[in-house]
Amino acid sequence: MRNVGEIDPPQRLLMGPGPINAHPRVLRAMSADLLGQFDPEMTTYMNEVMGLYRPIFGTENPWTFLVDGTARAGIEAALISLASPGDTVLVVNFGRFGLLLSEIFKRIGAHVETVDAPWGEVVPLDAIAAAIERVGPKVVATPHGDTSTTMAQPLEGLGVLCREAGALLYVDTTATLGGMEVAADRWGADIVTAGLQKCLAGPSGSAPITVSARAADHIQRRKHVEQGLRTGDHDDGDGIIIGSNYFDLGMIMDYWSDKRLNHHTEATTMLYGARECARIVLEEGLATRFARHTASGRAMSAGLRAMGLRLFGDDRYRMTNVTAAYIPEGVDGEAVRRRMREDFEIEIGTAFGPLAGKVWRFGAMGYNARKHKILITLGALEAVLRAEGHRSSAGCAVDAALDAWNGI
Amino acid sequence: MRNVGEIDPPQRLLMGPGPINAHPRVLRAMSADLLGQFDPEMTTYMNEVMGLYRPIFGTENPWTFLVDGTARAGIEAALISLASPGDTVLVVNFGRFGLLLSEIFKRIGAHVETVDAPWGEVVPLDAIAAAIERVGPKVVATPHGDTSTTMAQPLEGLGVLCREAGALLYVDTTATLGGMEVAADRWGADIVTAGLQKCLAGPSGSAPITVSARAADHIQRRKHVEQGLRTGDHDDGDGIIIGSNYFDLGMIMDYWSDKRLNHHTEATTMLYGARECARIVLEEGLATRFARHTASGRAMSAGLRAMGLRLFGDDRYRMTNVTAAYIPEGVDGEAVRRRMREDFEIEIGTAFGPLAGKVWRFGAMGYNARKHKILITLGALEAVLRAEGHRSSAGCAVDAALDAWNGI
Repeated sequence: MRNVGEIDPPQRLLMGPGPINAHPRVLRAMSADLLGQFDPEMTTYMNEVMGLYRPIFGTENPWTFLVDGTARAGIEAALISLASPGDTVLVVNFGRFGLLLSEIFKRIGAHVETVDAPWGEVVPLDAIAAAIERVGPKVVATPHGDTSTTMAQPLEGLGVLCREAGALLYVDTTATLGGMEVAADRWGADIVTAGLQKCLAGPSGSAPITVSARAADHIQRRKHVEQGLRTGDHDDGDGIIIGSNYFDLGMIMDYWSDKRLNHHTEATTMLYGARECARIVLEEGLATRFARHTASGRAMSAGLRAMGLRLFGDDRYRMTNVTAAYIPEGVDGEAVRRRMREDFEIEIGTAFGPLAGKVWRFGAMGYNARKHKILITLGALEAVLRAEGHRSSAGCAVDAALDAWNGI
Repeated sequence: MRNVGEIDPPQRLLMGPGPINAHPRVLRAMSADLLGQFDPEMTTYMNEVMGLYRPIFGTENPWTFLVDGTARAGIEAALISLASPGDTVLVVNFGRFGLLLSEIFKRIGAHVETVDAPWGEVVPLDAIAAAIERVGPKVVATPHGDTSTTMAQPLEGLGVLCREAGALLYVDTTATLGGMEVAADRWGADIVTAGLQKCLAGPSGSAPITVSARAADHIQRRKHVEQGLRTGDHDDGDGIIIGSNYFDLGMIMDYWSDKRLNHHTEATTMLYGARECARIVLEEGLATRFARHTASGRAMSAGLRAMGLRLFGDDRYRMTNVTAAYIPEGVDGEAVRRRMREDFEIEIGTAFGPLAGKVWRFGAMGYNARKHKILITLGALEAVLRAEGHRSSAGCAVDAALDAWNGI
């Protein structure tokens, strides 16, 4: 393998639905020297990570830690630790990530029921309540924000419904944690997971997770059965065993607890990154950070509308950090994305499933949820649309976005 | 969470069985700017990674890529993609990591048979051959080097036996890749996996993997069934479906192929690190690198013996990069490790299972398989042992190690 040179990526401005540009402080923290995984300095960092992520998740849960993998690893660890083969589960499905939850549950061998909304809408709480009553699920699972549709599912009151029905509640906040309010305790969520690569402004590869006492009890009971499996005095055919070693939250919790039982070799550099992401979030303050994302979403929406683009989805439930706009008739969406990348070094997002080829998605999250990056993106897009023959743009998108940012 | 300061770990010299200190170039490469996961520059980097790891694995396999997680994630992805529930599998078990392979297979629902050697020995090829004949396994799985016992299992000829028996062969080279020769093609291995945190001199969190054409066919056939699952026109109760989305190698291969089908968000920073690890290995040259590890193991062994310590395990099969020595009678092994860390900032390894409390493990791998680091470690250990009242040390360990390094 000749001619593989030193790493030297172009400096793209990543204004799609994620991954986005990491905060430079996060990347610098990740260049720190490694430590052994039972080094007292390392376990101190682990305890700090647990403490840092509690307020970010809106929780007092002692079990707040990291899964070593991307956001999807956190999702799978949560679902496989909550649901056993044969369990009935209910998925709140309003986009691609509801489909993902269903698929993972099916692979686990669970019986999956869904309560659905069309793409661009959310599921009303009373529809979820009716589905819980009808289905009697052991686990209810929902995305918070689903970047595929740009919708954020309202979650107030869902935890109470789940507890009344004896169901465990899982929430995927990959796309919202650190950008929109996540309130694990107030929601009554049993497991909440995320990733670094969106509003937390880090690279993909570490999945923050929080686990309620109720879910921890459930997992510890399953773990007890597994210990039998490991020592050989257990018939392993009963379906209670967690079907993964890597994603067995009970074993991972034993490593993050004072017991410090060995599991895998902790991904130290990613832990350093996750720690720095959280430090930056708490230094800025959650309220300030959410307000910055709200202003960003408002500015992006106003700018897109000002250039004559129609937004996708229900305004009332739009995520603050990602906005989808219809590709105007006669415009080649991929040609626009290419020009944005090649002429301006700006990445905007394509779309999936029923929206493939119909909308672009514009992210303004984490380190990129900043006024100048939104203005630059809108100005570039307006120029590219003109170059691609789109006539409806009035050339005032940047001004409209600036006014919206300033709340005018 | 107040008082969580900037990351500032002590500079420990990590001379245990891993993780070890990353090469500084690797950590610097990881601070490069992020890219979108379908950016042409990003997919170029992915293709380069594939090309870089082929010679390191000793393979021509097109399917050579990364799993996003620690070494253990690579192991689980391999096993869950090869074995289905109910399959009979054979594990070559000569230490802790054979037990891990067995445990993961059991969680998958496979029927596990083992062919065993006592800790400190390896399994003779004819014993494996007899076990294959007796068991008729669908998959044979073995560690290459097992750091728990410091033994390296000879693998020449095993692939032929597996092919004759219609079995797929999996080899875990976490502890050896980049330090001892790995010859996936010559061994006839179908999947080989590793991690960065040992001889590749990177941080834990990315798992290089190579997949033979035969294994890829097997996985693609399973994937076909899953696509039915995803589109809903398939009865998902037949046990052929891979029980994990995150570890479904078929889907990960679709992302690394020219199809570039979306799966999870690639852990870009870890990919940058894995790429730099491989560049450094190939710049040094495999033969030079293996010779450096061989000299390191020889020097470490000679030094330990010169201070009167008895080594654990069969000399003929000792890994070159990690050496275990019995803790002398009357010496508190943990007190020695603490003094090594506190007085010298050097980490040496403890042990597991039947060896817990009985041996220390000394790693000299990757960036740390260097003369001065071995001499420094031995000199420090000799001083600590004297301080702890160990009388048998003649004070010549460093000289003996230097002679052994130089082949005298």
